[in-house]
Amino acid sequence: MKIGLLGFGTVGEGVYQLAQTHPELEIVTVFRRKDGEIPGCTVTHDFSQILNDPEIDTVVEVIGGIEHASEYVLAALRAGKNVVTANKALLAAKYDELLAAAKTSGAKFRASAAVGGSIGWLANLERAKRIQEIDHIHGIFNGTCNYMLDLMTRQQLDYQQVLRQAQDLGYAEADPSADVDGLDTAAKLTISANIAFGISLHHESVPVSGISQINSADITTFTERGYVCKLLGTADKFADRIEAYVQPTLVRSSDATAAVHTNYNLAEFSGSATGTQSFGGQGAGRYPTAYNVLQDLCDLLAGKSFHTDTVPQSEVTAENSTQLHYYLRGDSTDLADWPAAEISAHWDQGILTTAQPVAKMHQWLKAHREVFAAALPRDFQVHEMK
Amino acid sequence: MKIGLLGFGTVGEGVYQLAQTHPELEIVTVFRRKDGEIPGCTVTHDFSQILNDPEIDTVVEVIGGIEHASEYVLAALRAGKNVVTANKALLAAKYDELLAAAKTSGAKFRASAAVGGSIGWLANLERAKRIQEIDHIHGIFNGTCNYMLDLMTRQQLDYQQVLRQAQDLGYAEADPSADVDGLDTAAKLTISANIAFGISLHHESVPVSGISQINSADITTFTERGYVCKLLGTADKFADRIEAYVQPTLVRSSDATAAVHTNYNLAEFSGSATGTQSFGGQGAGRYPTAYNVLQDLCDLLAGKSFHTDTVPQSEVTAENSTQLHYYLRGDSTDLADWPAAEISAHWDQGILTTAQPVAKMHQWLKAHREVFAAALPRDFQVHEMK
Repeated sequence: MKIGLLGFGTVGEGVYQLAQTHPELEIVTVFRRKDGEIPGCTVTHDFSQILNDPEIDTVVEVIGGIEHASEYVLAALRAGKNVVTANKALLAAKYDELLAAAKTSGAKFRASAAVGGSIGWLANLERAKRIQEIDHIHGIFNGTCNYMLDLMTRQQLDYQQVLRQAQDLGYAEADPSADVDGLDTAAKLTISANIAFGISLHHESVPVSGISQINSADITTFTERGYVCKLLGTADKFADRIEAYVQPTLVRSSDATAAVHTNYNLAEFSGSATGTQSFGGQGAGRYPTAYNVLQDLCDLLAGKSFHTDTVPQSEVTAENSTQLHYYLRGDSTDLADWPAAEISAHWDQGILTTAQPVAKMHQWLKAHREVFAAALPRDFQVHEMK
Repeated sequence: MKIGLLGFGTVGEGVYQLAQTHPELEIVTVFRRKDGEIPGCTVTHDFSQILNDPEIDTVVEVIGGIEHASEYVLAALRAGKNVVTANKALLAAKYDELLAAAKTSGAKFRASAAVGGSIGWLANLERAKRIQEIDHIHGIFNGTCNYMLDLMTRQQLDYQQVLRQAQDLGYAEADPSADVDGLDTAAKLTISANIAFGISLHHESVPVSGISQINSADITTFTERGYVCKLLGTADKFADRIEAYVQPTLVRSSDATAAVHTNYNLAEFSGSATGTQSFGGQGAGRYPTAYNVLQDLCDLLAGKSFHTDTVPQSEVTAENSTQLHYYLRGDSTDLADWPAAEISAHWDQGILTTAQPVAKMHQWLKAHREVFAAALPRDFQVHEMK
C-alpha cells in the first residue's frame, strides 16, 4: 500500500512513526504546511502532488477541520483513492457526501479513529452488527469534559480552575466551546448512531447541552446524593423513530460510567444477543489515535470498506421522546420561568423537575442558556429523592 | 458453510437460533444425546456421521468438558474440517495439540467465545496485536465469583448465602469448585495470555488462589478501607519472563474494576500504542456465548484462522516475581506460621504482609489452604494503611 499522508501534526507524526514497523504500509508523500525533511518520504505543500500521483493508492487525512479536509478527502475518493480519516467533524458534517463519493468511485473509506481515539469503538460496532441488532448506544465521547468533571468531583475544584488545568495540559483549546458546549460529543454520537443503527442523522438535529454553566455547588449536591455528573451522548433506535441527544447526565456512583476518570472515554451499546457491552480507553492523543488509523489501513488491506452501508438521511425525532427527570439550576428569574406544577423537589440551590420529554427540555434550555441542566438516570424514581 | 453442531444444550440451542437469520451459516447435522427433531437439521447420536460427511466443512463444539470434546475436535481438525469452540477448559488444556492439528491439516480454528462470553475479548486482542505489543492483561473472567463477591459487598450477605443464590440462579454448579477455587479463571487467563503475548503457557503452572475461604468480616474490613475484593486473573510479559496468576485482589472503590456488578466480566490490556483498554459485558449465558460462536463463523467465512500463531510451550516463572502486599486471615495457628518480621500491619481479624513475591505467597498458601488471601493493588503504599 502506497500512502499519501495529509497532515504531520500530533496524530500525523504518530501515524508516520507507527507505520515504520509495518513494511506493507508505505508512506510515500507527506502533505504539510511546514518545511522540513521526513526520512523516507517526499514532503509537499501541494495536495495535487498526492492526488495526481498514480502510485499513491491510499490517502490518510489527519489535518482536522472541515473545509480543506473535505476538499482533499472528496477529491481523493472521487479519484478512486482509498481514504482513512480520523476527522469526526468532517465525518459528522459530510457523512452522506463522503459515503456516496466512495460508492461511486469504488474507493474504500474508513474512520475508526474518529470516535473514541484508541478504543476501536466503530470497528466493534461494525463487528457486532454482523450478528445482532443494536438498539441503544451511549458514552463519554469527550475526554476534555470528562477530565474537567472528574477533577471537579474528585478534587472539589471549581469550573474555571479545571478549565485552566485542561488548557495547560493541551486537552482544551483557548476557545473551549467545541468541547464544553457538547459539539464534539454530538459529532461523535452522530457518527456512532449512524454506524450502530444503519441510519444517517442530520448532525445538527441532535439536541445538545453542555457543561459550561456547571459550578462546584452543583457537584456537591450530586455527590451528597450518590451521583456523579458526566457529559453523555445517548441514542436509541425505536420501531418508529430515532432519538439522540447530548447532555450532562447524573449516573449512580456505583455505576461503571462513574468510574471513568481523567480524560478516558467509555462507550456502550446494547444488542439483541449480547445485552450491554462496554469499551473503554484513551479517547485522544498521538499514539492512541494513530493506532486506529493503522488499524483501518490494515482493514483496507484485508478488503474492508466503510463500517456500514449508505442510507437516506434521517432526522432525530422531536415527538414522543423519552421522558427524564432533570436537575435545573440558574438565577431566580430563569428558574421562575419553569412551571411550578412541573417541579418534583428542591435540591439545594436547584430544582428537580417532573419527568420531561427530552426534546421539550432542550427547547426550554435554548431560551435559558445560563441554566445548568443535568438529566437523572432513566430508571430514577421520585422516591429516591433525599 | 455447512455446519455440524456438537451439543444442543444452553449454548448449542442459542447457536442454532442465532444461525437461523444467517443463510450462509447452514447447520446440517446436530450431534446430541437426547432424541427429538430439530427443524432443518439431521439429529444424530453418532459423531462419525458428522466426521464422515464430506458436505460438512465446519464443526461447532459446544459440548464442554475435555475428554469427549477433545476427541471430537481433534478428529475434525485432522480431517480438515474447520472448528469453532467455546470450550475454555479444552483450549487451556490442549492448546498446543489443537493448534498443531489445525496447522497440519490446514483447517481453520477459532475460539472467541471461550473467554469473556459476549465480549469478543480474544478477537480484540487479535486486532490489537496487528499494530502493537501487549505487555499486560488482567480481568474478571468468572461471572459466578463476581456475582458472589458483588452480593457480599453490596448486600452484606455471607458466603454460604451468596453461593446458594448463585446455585439457585444456575450461575454455580452443585460442586462450585471450578469457579470458586479459581480454576475457570486460570483457564481463561492462560488462553488470554497465550493470545496476547504470543506464547503457550502450561496451564497448570499458573498459581491460583480462590474465594472459598472469604467471609463477611473480610468484606467489611475492605469496605471500611475503600477497597472492593474481586477475583482477578493477571498476566505480564517482561523482557525475560512471563508472570501469570489468579488471586482475590483488592481494587480501590473508585476503580472501574470495582464497578463491575452481578455476573459481568471485564477484561483489560495495556498496549504500547493505546495504553490501557477495557472490554466489559456478559461473560456467559446462551445468547452472549452463542453470539461469539457466530462471530467466529463469520470470521472463518472471511478467511481468518486462529487468533495467533503456534509457538513452543513456556512455563510461568517462579523467579523474580512481582512483589505485592497481601491481606491474610485465618485461624491463629495458621497465621502464627507467617513470619512476624513480614507483617506490616493488622487489619481487624487479619494481617497485612510486607511486599511478597507472588510465587512465594502462592507456595505458602498451598500449605495453608484455610487462610484467605487477597492481594493489595500494585501501587499500594504502606502509608495508605488505616
